[in-house]
Amino acid sequence: MTDSPSLASGVSELFQLLRDGVPRTRAELAKSTGLARSTIAARVDELMRMGLITAVADKVSTGGRPPSQFALNPAARVVIAADLGASHATVAIADLAGTILAESSEPIDIADGPDAVLSWLLDGARRLLAQVGRDDPAVAAIGIGVPGPVEHSSGKPSTPPIMPGWDGFDIPGWLQAHIPVPVLVDNDVNTMALGERATAWPSVDNLLFVKIATGIGAGLISDGHLQRGAQGVAGDIGHVHIARGGDVPCTCGNRGCLEALASGPAIARTLRATGVEAHTVNDVVDLVKHGNVDAIQAVRQAGRDIGEVLTTCVSLVNPSVIAIGGSMARVGEHLIAGVREVVYSRSAPLATAHLSIVQSATGAEAGVLGASILAVEHALSRDVLAAGVATV
Amino acid sequence: MTDSPSLASGVSELFQLLRDGVPRTRAELAKSTGLARSTIAARVDELMRMGLITAVADKVSTGGRPPSQFALNPAARVVIAADLGASHATVAIADLAGTILAESSEPIDIADGPDAVLSWLLDGARRLLAQVGRDDPAVAAIGIGVPGPVEHSSGKPSTPPIMPGWDGFDIPGWLQAHIPVPVLVDNDVNTMALGERATAWPSVDNLLFVKIATGIGAGLISDGHLQRGAQGVAGDIGHVHIARGGDVPCTCGNRGCLEALASGPAIARTLRATGVEAHTVNDVVDLVKHGNVDAIQAVRQAGRDIGEVLTTCVSLVNPSVIAIGGSMARVGEHLIAGVREVVYSRSAPLATAHLSIVQSATGAEAGVLGASILAVEHALSRDVLAAGVATV
Repeated sequence: MTDSPSLASGVSELFQLLRDGVPRTRAELAKSTGLARSTIAARVDELMRMGLITAVADKVSTGGRPPSQFALNPAARVVIAADLGASHATVAIADLAGTILAESSEPIDIADGPDAVLSWLLDGARRLLAQVGRDDPAVAAIGIGVPGPVEHSSGKPSTPPIMPGWDGFDIPGWLQAHIPVPVLVDNDVNTMALGERATAWPSVDNLLFVKIATGIGAGLISDGHLQRGAQGVAGDIGHVHIARGGDVPCTCGNRGCLEALASGPAIARTLRATGVEAHTVNDVVDLVKHGNVDAIQAVRQAGRDIGEVLTTCVSLVNPSVIAIGGSMARVGEHLIAGVREVVYSRSAPLATAHLSIVQSATGAEAGVLGASILAVEHALSRDVLAAGVATV
Repeated sequence: MTDSPSLASGVSELFQLLRDGVPRTRAELAKSTGLARSTIAARVDELMRMGLITAVADKVSTGGRPPSQFALNPAARVVIAADLGASHATVAIADLAGTILAESSEPIDIADGPDAVLSWLLDGARRLLAQVGRDDPAVAAIGIGVPGPVEHSSGKPSTPPIMPGWDGFDIPGWLQAHIPVPVLVDNDVNTMALGERATAWPSVDNLLFVKIATGIGAGLISDGHLQRGAQGVAGDIGHVHIARGGDVPCTCGNRGCLEALASGPAIARTLRATGVEAHTVNDVVDLVKHGNVDAIQAVRQAGRDIGEVLTTCVSLVNPSVIAIGGSMARVGEHLIAGVREVVYSRSAPLATAHLSIVQSATGAEAGVLGASILAVEHALSRDVLAAGVATV
């Protein structure tokens, strides 16, 4: 075998078939790929040698025969996944099938800056690694969601409004000084969209995840791919001016933004104006859960406001699922009813004929799950794997 | 060489490098791919034999040496491209570099139905083929833009409002009974977006093309790919309800849609209400060109209405270019000024920092150019080419 890059890309290609975890025989692999049996045998051996696939015993076999099926070995490597919020963070270890093996969550303050927060992340990840009996060399990649826009190619936050000290900070560089593996950084709503899709909608290629909490943002998956836009700020729908927005000031400096009217704090402000004591997202959620009519009406109106913006989103990208998540989504149907009311009455019929608008199924887990997917996808990708084989 | 599918995919991969038309030596190809010189030589021979690449004489050579560089042979095959409008159609022959070799336009009535219109297309294409000295076997693929939503996978129009008789019609099947090659059908605004990008913005990966004419629609390119959405109706932004839409009835059956307020006929209706004689898009364009103040103001307001919807689009997909095309775009800056006024004041600063909002550079050519790109991209794609090599 003198043609090593070609072998590498061939091995990688075979692995792309096997990474779904479904066991296949050599004969099945030959049929799927059109490759010669001898080629398949050589490539299977190579992937076994790398530990990326394992032999799976034939279930109907009564013993004596050697194992004849092969599948992804999820335990070959692990990834570190982290979901960094403004005031709360989760770090986890996942295997190559994206299964979370260990996880821990803690209050943090993102404004403490990158050194403090990334040190916390690294320490936490190493503790969890030890807990599952692995160490640094087992880590294939690191995936991180952060609460602000990120330049995807470099992994650097880009003018993030609620992350003082992080603008342009080289998150991958900092972490790679400790664990030299690929580091993928993305906006937290993007990682949530990935997590939601993997968990609840694995066969859906066009999904919009909308996070409603202290802020409002969206993660867009079109044609099976996360869309980040030209500057990595795709999905930033919280600062669109809405019809009833008027002159209400927004934290962004503009007026009448969706976020200034329909976020958790905005709903709380509306309630305070009617004499109801409410300050935080949790206050609003509690009031709704206790049947407070003012709170229910305010939440429904927020849903309509969000629906007004989503109407255009639906028409532009024609998703088949809109998943409503974030801490405000815990109020349940009242918020979603408002969204549905407007989207279904104001969008083009063809775009809503097969559209589901539902509550997020992953809840608080979505972010860290998505971060693990970012890391696993990269670690198992065709090019990265081909490069890995070529250097073996 | 017994491993034919592998050879096929290797040849295809090499060709993906060469299809940009830049001549490369065998040594350069070996360096770019990491493949052994002997492998490169075999694959170059195979592509030469298929006629897909040609030897390009070394310009500094003084003769005597054999040609040492290779590049795409654009004349290897041709594609048929067609842009079918409601009342006007263009058919063209293009080479594999996407260059239009011959073209003809004629008034048609799309409502005459598929048999009449596709017969016209086929006759016209064969006349043009003869004109450039080619025949049916030289055709590698056919690309067509139609004025309505299309199910991309099957190439069938899907409930197209202005194409009576076409709903679910098997356009590829009809054409393949005459010329048995791949037929790619898409919405005309999608083909326009492709044409605009190829002509004016080849290095832009996030572009929104907005067609403003009798109707209003958009073609969305994100991350370098045309986005069609779950049902193929992505970009259908003409039926979003706008702030000043009120109860104005729309042809879609809803009220207050963007198209009911800001399309060419809608602007003409506004002008008639002020006593100005205007009925068609052309009337409005003429009035603006002659400096009619009412017409200029109406066009500017239409621009603001369109800008209102585009504000959300910009926030959602973060394009770097919005190209305004369609017959109404001929009014020039007044329309675009209205769009810019609203988009730049109401979108998140990060999403507009590097955003250009410009008039389409391709004009009436965009559609047929894009249709030729659809066809060429498919004909030269990795999989199609690999299958072609494997059967050689």
